[in-house]
Amino acid sequence: MQQIDAIIRNALAEDIHTGDITTQALQLKSGVISGILKAKENMIVCGLAVAERVFSILDNEVKFTHCCADGDLVFAGNVIAKISGNASSLLQGERVALNLLQRMSGVATLTSKYVQAVKGTKVRIVDTRKTTPGLRILEKYAVRVGGGSNHRTGLYDGVLIKENHIAAAGGISAAVSRAKSYIPHTLKIEIETQSLTDVTEAITAGADIIMLDNMDIETMKDAVAIISGRSLVEASGGVNLSTVKAIAETGVDIISVGALTHSAPAMDISMLLEGA
Amino acid sequence: MQQIDAIIRNALAEDIHTGDITTQALQLKSGVISGILKAKENMIVCGLAVAERVFSILDNEVKFTHCCADGDLVFAGNVIAKISGNASSLLQGERVALNLLQRMSGVATLTSKYVQAVKGTKVRIVDTRKTTPGLRILEKYAVRVGGGSNHRTGLYDGVLIKENHIAAAGGISAAVSRAKSYIPHTLKIEIETQSLTDVTEAITAGADIIMLDNMDIETMKDAVAIISGRSLVEASGGVNLSTVKAIAETGVDIISVGALTHSAPAMDISMLLEGA
Amino acid sequence: MQQIDAIIRNALAEDIHTGDITTQALQLKSGVISGILKAKENMIVCGLAVAERVFSILDNEVKFTHCCADGDLVFAGNVIAKISGNASSLLQGERVALNLLQRMSGVATLTSKYVQAVKGTKVRIVDTRKTTPGLRILEKYAVRVGGGSNHRTGLYDGVLIKENHIAAAGGISAAVSRAKSYIPHTLKIEIETQSLTDVTEAITAGADIIMLDNMDIETMKDAVAIISGRSLVEASGGVNLSTVKAIAETGVDIISVGALTHSAPAMDISMLLEGA
Amino acid sequence: MQQIDAIIRNALAEDIHTGDITTQALQLKSGVISGILKAKENMIVCGLAVAERVFSILDNEVKFTHCCADGDLVFAGNVIAKISGNASSLLQGERVALNLLQRMSGVATLTSKYVQAVKGTKVRIVDTRKTTPGLRILEKYAVRVGGGSNHRTGLYDGVLIKENHIAAAGGISAAVSRAKSYIPHTLKIEIETQSLTDVTEAITAGADIIMLDNMDIETMKDAVAIISGRSLVEASGGVNLSTVKAIAETGVDIISVGALTHSAPAMDISMLLEGA
Amino acid sequence: MQQIDAIIRNALAEDIHTGDITTQALQLKSGVISGILKAKENMIVCGLAVAERVFSILDNEVKFTHCCADGDLVFAGNVIAKISGNASSLLQGERVALNLLQRMSGVATLTSKYVQAVKGTKVRIVDTRKTTPGLRILEKYAVRVGGGSNHRTGLYDGVLIKENHIAAAGGISAAVSRAKSYIPHTLKIEIETQSLTDVTEAITAGADIIMLDNMDIETMKDAVAIISGRSLVEASGGVNLSTVKAIAETGVDIISVGALTHSAPAMDISMLLEGA
Amino acid sequence: MQQIDAIIRNALAEDIHTGDITTQALQLKSGVISGILKAKENMIVCGLAVAERVFSILDNEVKFTHCCADGDLVFAGNVIAKISGNASSLLQGERVALNLLQRMSGVATLTSKYVQAVKGTKVRIVDTRKTTPGLRILEKYAVRVGGGSNHRTGLYDGVLIKENHIAAAGGISAAVSRAKSYIPHTLKIEIETQSLTDVTEAITAGADIIMLDNMDIETMKDAVAIISGRSLVEASGGVNLSTVKAIAETGVDIISVGALTHSAPAMDISMLLEGA
Repeated sequence: MQQIDAIIRNALAEDIHTGDITTQALQLKSGVISGILKAKENMIVCGLAVAERVFSILDNEVKFTHCCADGDLVFAGNVIAKISGNASSLLQGERVALNLLQRMSGVATLTSKYVQAVKGTKVRIVDTRKTTPGLRILEKYAVRVGGGSNHRTGLYDGVLIKENHIAAAGGISAAVSRAKSYIPHTLKIEIETQSLTDVTEAITAGADIIMLDNMDIETMKDAVAIISGRSLVEASGGVNLSTVKAIAETGVDIISVGALTHSAPAMDISMLLEGA
Repeated sequence: MQQIDAIIRNALAEDIHTGDITTQALQLKSGVISGILKAKENMIVCGLAVAERVFSILDNEVKFTHCCADGDLVFAGNVIAKISGNASSLLQGERVALNLLQRMSGVATLTSKYVQAVKGTKVRIVDTRKTTPGLRILEKYAVRVGGGSNHRTGLYDGVLIKENHIAAAGGISAAVSRAKSYIPHTLKIEIETQSLTDVTEAITAGADIIMLDNMDIETMKDAVAIISGRSLVEASGGVNLSTVKAIAETGVDIISVGALTHSAPAMDISMLLEGA
Repeated sequence: MQQIDAIIRNALAEDIHTGDITTQALQLKSGVISGILKAKENMIVCGLAVAERVFSILDNEVKFTHCCADGDLVFAGNVIAKISGNASSLLQGERVALNLLQRMSGVATLTSKYVQAVKGTKVRIVDTRKTTPGLRILEKYAVRVGGGSNHRTGLYDGVLIKENHIAAAGGISAAVSRAKSYIPHTLKIEIETQSLTDVTEAITAGADIIMLDNMDIETMKDAVAIISGRSLVEASGGVNLSTVKAIAETGVDIISVGALTHSAPAMDISMLLEGA
Repeated sequence: MQQIDAIIRNALAEDIHTGDITTQALQLKSGVISGILKAKENMIVCGLAVAERVFSILDNEVKFTHCCADGDLVFAGNVIAKISGNASSLLQGERVALNLLQRMSGVATLTSKYVQAVKGTKVRIVDTRKTTPGLRILEKYAVRVGGGSNHRTGLYDGVLIKENHIAAAGGISAAVSRAKSYIPHTLKIEIETQSLTDVTEAITAGADIIMLDNMDIETMKDAVAIISGRSLVEASGGVNLSTVKAIAETGVDIISVGALTHSAPAMDISMLLEGA
Repeated sequence: MQQIDAIIRNALAEDIHTGDITTQALQLKSGVISGILKAKENMIVCGLAVAERVFSILDNEVKFTHCCADGDLVFAGNVIAKISGNASSLLQGERVALNLLQRMSGVATLTSKYVQAVKGTKVRIVDTRKTTPGLRILEKYAVRVGGGSNHRTGLYDGVLIKENHIAAAGGISAAVSRAKSYIPHTLKIEIETQSLTDVTEAITAGADIIMLDNMDIETMKDAVAIISGRSLVEASGGVNLSTVKAIAETGVDIISVGALTHSAPAMDISMLLEGA
Repeated sequence: MQQIDAIIRNALAEDIHTGDITTQALQLKSGVISGILKAKENMIVCGLAVAERVFSILDNEVKFTHCCADGDLVFAGNVIAKISGNASSLLQGERVALNLLQRMSGVATLTSKYVQAVKGTKVRIVDTRKTTPGLRILEKYAVRVGGGSNHRTGLYDGVLIKENHIAAAGGISAAVSRAKSYIPHTLKIEIETQSLTDVTEAITAGADIIMLDNMDIETMKDAVAIISGRSLVEASGGVNLSTVKAIAETGVDIISVGALTHSAPAMDISMLLEGA
């Protein structure tokens, strides 16, 4: 895919630029060596095809064998992939491949924790636009691998009318009505609400999705009752691993979590070459 | 700077693509509105010029006033910057500006914690190449803003001979000797060591910098004694906020910390527009 | 907007490349001259800001004054815009500006004819993905200027399950069900139907939009009756200016027309400089 | 060729962007399926290699078999090409491949009608710079496939001194003389004329090609007589399928027709996959 | 101009990349300083606007004052331009600006020597495609500034049928005839000849320009006599400053010289800042 | 390598752009032909892999056989490489491949002359940043192939404090001290000196490398004596093939020579195809 290749080429250029001066200086003998990618903590692995692509862009004779699949739970010490090829290709691709794999696995792993936390409810855990600039497509993929779902990709493929839009547009009804007449018929309209009054106005205006912004648990329950299935309901704000279950139990359909992508710690993975 | 502009343009394209459909749909009246960027937790702020540039690339009539400077400690509730301009420009730039600012402030804040932890020692806290693909230049800047220093930028501007290079090159002495004859005279040679024997060989070979890889505290002390000022000493591996002080007290010159860039949580910052 | 600038820069590079050799050869004296852009047939004008941007990218001292607005009906002989600036800038930008303006006005004019034809019905005239490669964003804008609406922008921002998707997915119900569990909650699901049986299955499966593909008028009427408001209904195929009214009167909500963008003839517009 | 690949990659990015969400959602089983590209009206087909390249860029395992050649007359119902490969690759490439093929075939077909209309005369039908921005190289190729010839490609590879150049340069003689001393010796000089007086001045000045701009038939005949073989003669303006024959019979060498590229309707071609 | 800006941006990125570490490290106080660009040997200066653009791309507040014009003969010690602005901007742009200016002045100066050498003849000194990859547009400009003329810019804007084309096409007559029917009517046809027999065949075939390839002086004279004004005559091969006059006196119209661009030594120019 | 491919693609686009009109016009029969690349003067050959890559980017079925290796001394008349493939691919790649090969061989050959001239001393001949804009990576490689070494690649990977930096920073000691606290520990600090006083100050300040700028032979000897091995010593300025030996004998470690890259004449190499 062109977008992912562009991310990888950019990352390789950033790291290698005019050349890997260490490897050049050492004039390493060419010849195939082997190695492994190994998990150093438990994780939901994600990004194997991306890591593989890093090496194939550098040198299409590198062999990269998957020892598990995206979405698998792997344990500290497990081998994630085997790799073999020219030493200088492996050394040049190592850091970029791991940086991507560690980050994507971090997002998938954190997402899976949220998904586990709401197990037994009907809630979808979804991401936000609080992604790493330049890596959104990979992070949104990692959210799906971790068992979550995606919110809109960007400003261009979904309508989300927020507080300041409402203010500028002169209220919820006016905003929803204008949006309906403008947008492609293939898109739904989501609107942010701050109060039960807002919720009532939104449902009357015909919003397809109602976001409950930073409401407390009781207010969310009331909102769900008011809406009563006439639109989807999304909870947003103040979500963390200790609050998510209670939020899910209010009856909302969707919970969006910025932390999935903006604060997932990288998983620890290393590449070990034979003889080293 | 061309590289930073490229990052911003790429991030804006990722988010806006064919257009902000919500704002278009609402046909917001043009006219200047104002707002603020506000810290929602304590942090070392970083990235103000980058956030400002996001808006000026979108619309060079947006005004962005700094209320603090990169490197300042700001508290939850503090105003970081004031902003005014056309509503649709502010709304379109908001997410990208905040995504960058939150991430850079996260890196600066985490770095400052490590720097605080080693206060009173001569140690430099430095970053690694474990950065977010595509954002290395910003993250390395954030490390400096947080009080840290930079390691090499990439494979092209520093020589770091690692375990697998040594294996492939036939030992530490051979590797250092080959590198000396090849590299620009403006670069130093750093070599990774696993044992005190390695350290002794490295110092004899004339390495400029010796990295102690994943050694325990006692071994590091012994290594520092052996080296005795004949090269710089860098500690690497197993560094976290609870271990960093003890490592610093072994007498090493430099401690490198991957987590500064791969696992710094984003700081919480929001944009509030008037009337909303 | 970055995308439109990219289109214009690409078009200018295509036409000018290493330089306008005629203008260079003549060593035209610099100095401001004036001119007009004039309609040579009746049209709905579209693309004024784009034409203006062509000149401002070439030379930001060119002045371009709008004498009408996008969406206005102008008549043969009307002045659309006035322009003044350095002769060589005007001559270099002329062809690219006109090529874009003529094409966009062509799309807007043709769209307005379809919209006129269905006046009095509730039908929306929408475009398709049968656009000029590279110019989709401009052509979709021109459709809106002509009074039409947009279908999805591309494969990434809307779900349209076609005949071959259905075959591959094992039927309408299976396809709709899989799509529901996968896609962002902000998107609707549209499905193509070939028969009333398909329509019944689609409505049962919970499709948000049902496309009636190449059905005759009577079948469309029956389909509308079956659907009975439970989903949006889009007619597609065999639409032209003589059939569109009858199709609209079947009660469908949306009629999509590929010709709006793939076969709209360019409107005739010329640039006249003073003294020439 | 790099330029054509750039057009195709741009068109694919425009359509697919972050991914074909429908195909992803349906999780179509991989495996080879087959299909055909079929003409739905009579046409001069053009663009087969371009359509093939669309698929090979997406997935180099797609097989694309030409059932005719560029320039062939094919009839409604004829199979133009056979295609087989992974379903998702075929579905993702379909629209871009058809958009290009339909447009190029449209240009070739319209050109062939003009060429037919002047059969028996020595006239060359040539294109203009009134091409689709970004697609000039493909459209100029389609003109040749349709039996026409190309005028200059852009402002950089031919000298065409127009009315406003003449005004600015101080007359025909001065303009031709300046151009002669400046341009590469490999280029000819063409000059636009409005009257027989202009023609006489141009021929005296040594123009290599004289364009008769919007002259009536009788004036063109007179111009041809005056020029009497001392330069090439190009007729321009007011050319359509009903006037072109009479213009050709005036004795001009070349007739340029903007409509070949700016107003050729797309030819109707569809892709049909087996089982659908 | 987009092409020249692209060259400059590329050159700046090549030199500055992630930043001028020396200037950053020194934390130079901001504030305007002044300096000069000074010739250190006699030369035809060329590239002033390009050097100026280097600085304005880096920092549009740098002032760059021309003290002479492209094409002027300047002497060792002469000031070419004055410059003032922020120290770090001047230091960052210095090398790229000088690299371009020194190279372009080198080409202009060498060209002017050839032009001087043939003074009094009607010969045009022209360049070839033996230019520095990526800098052709600048070098062809420098040739004109030095008093020379340009041959075709590339393979796309001129027809030059060489020995191996002739062999492949089955002889001179066949080659010229095929080319005539294919190429735009705005281009001339040039053909390479190795012997007087070739010359005769070329003139009969109707070539517009005949290149005499590596012929000796006497053969060139004979060729000129045979051609007798029926085509332009270009001499190529074995041209240097001691042979060019004799070649010119054979009566050829054009002499092409690869060395103008592939072997012109850079002129020595330095930038001196005040206080340093 | 991505950077070299970018240079080649750019050079091919510059030369071929919309197409090789001569080859197209002649409709050369496809089929494999062979040829050679032949040295026409004695040289150190450099750039074979780059020349090969030019053809493989154009047409990956071209075969390119190396008949010598980069760094070999070849004599006038020697065959450097054999080539075979489709005639039009060979003809289209010829000029770009030769332009690069001739330039790189020119740099390698000139470098080897300097290296020969200092044979028997310990001196390294190094390049500067006075390279051809856009081709630095290739020219720095050619310097190494010619037996020289590289100075820093650009402003980003080495610290060189020049006269104007020193003035702005308030003296040598202050400048070195500031740089030490800022730069990555992997980089050395080089400082330019104008006098023996400067040298003494620089050595006291702890500079890693001292550049002697335009000093005479006696002063350089004194400087070397003062420094006495405490830093590397680089001579710069006034270096040519007749002075370099005497400079080397002063005891400096490094001599930098701008002419290696800014004024190396191209070596003469031609491509000959069979049958032509």
